[in-house]
Amino acid sequence: MKEVMAFIRVNKINPTKKALAEGGFPAFTCRSVLGRGKKQIDPELLTLVLENGELPMSLKGEHLSESYRWIPKRLVTLVVEDEQVKDVVDILIKTNQTGNPGDGKIFVLPIYEAYTVRSGEHTIDAY
Amino acid sequence: MKEVMAFIRVNKINPTKKALAEGGFPAFTCRSVLGRGKKQIDPELLTLVLENGELPMSLKGEHLSESYRWIPKRLVTLVVEDEQVKDVVDILIKTNQTGNPGDGKIFVLPIYEAYTVRSGEHTIDAY
Amino acid sequence: MKEVMAFIRVNKINPTKKALAEGGFPAFTCRSVLGRGKKQIDPELLTLVLENGELPMSLKGEHLSESYRWIPKRLVTLVVEDEQVKDVVDILIKTNQTGNPGDGKIFVLPIYEAYTVRSGEHTIDAY
Repeated sequence: MKEVMAFIRVNKINPTKKALAEGGFPAFTCRSVLGRGKKQIDPELLTLVLENGELPMSLKGEHLSESYRWIPKRLVTLVVEDEQVKDVVDILIKTNQTGNPGDGKIFVLPIYEAYTVRSGEHTIDAY
Repeated sequence: MKEVMAFIRVNKINPTKKALAEGGFPAFTCRSVLGRGKKQIDPELLTLVLENGELPMSLKGEHLSESYRWIPKRLVTLVVEDEQVKDVVDILIKTNQTGNPGDGKIFVLPIYEAYTVRSGEHTIDAY
Repeated sequence: MKEVMAFIRVNKINPTKKALAEGGFPAFTCRSVLGRGKKQIDPELLTLVLENGELPMSLKGEHLSESYRWIPKRLVTLVVEDEQVKDVVDILIKTNQTGNPGDGKIFVLPIYEAYTVRSGEHTIDAY
């Protein structure tokens, strides 16, 4: 098993949700994160984003420092079988690729064990 | 060392916190996530959840699309020694198992190194 | 490649951001988490923190149980090359070490693959 973590644009979360579900991957989670890539963010653009209320209030103060601004992103995570990683990555890239900086990053991590809480079902993958 | 990640019901967070602390695992973190498993969510039920204010405002718009609804979950993560994984998983399953769909999932991931910031103490586990 | 996860104090996020960027690591993400270490929290101190509005509203109810209190933390994550792990950890410890309990923890996890969504660029590291 592998965990696929995708950091994507906020406005791509609904198309990504839809594409994953239609591609046979209905089970995943989404979190709000603040991220920055290697490119400096245009401050005016960020101000607009901030005014749109994208950020949790508790984090707003952290954005006011001048030099190192962050932007809100969505982190989508799925746990899939090894042989499904390529399909999931293909769906994520196809749905999120605009060709502009900030399209995001996808990482693949190992998962050694999985349990279904309801049934207690246990899968050991690797150790 | 291993990281244990448990996606559980929102209303199970307090019993889980208590059970982990009483079981000798006081150190862990909790995050709000939005998740969906393989089952379609009842839209009426979700509307109730939403009205209860469970969701961060910034994510609400993402819930309005008709077909692929998500529900708020809590993600509990702990880093424990290899020989403690079974105990932690047992506590998590015992506390969170209702027998109904949506009880959650537990995943076990490798941790290669750990540092305590205060002391600089460093544990290398595997590479 | 490795993922470096650092759980740090809320008031250390700006210095950490600055130190990482100046150290040549501009790309990372930040999330709000609730955590507790092995030490019991002083309830009066926590009440102050709560009144300062540090917690997302949706989590506040979960803090009212008497015995097992959590405190807000920031989780900073970076994905770096293997040979950069030591530099990143050094920056994180130097910036976050006050010598008091609660300075935080740093964990290092394996990353097997990385993709840049914009270009489709793919790095396989280990399997």
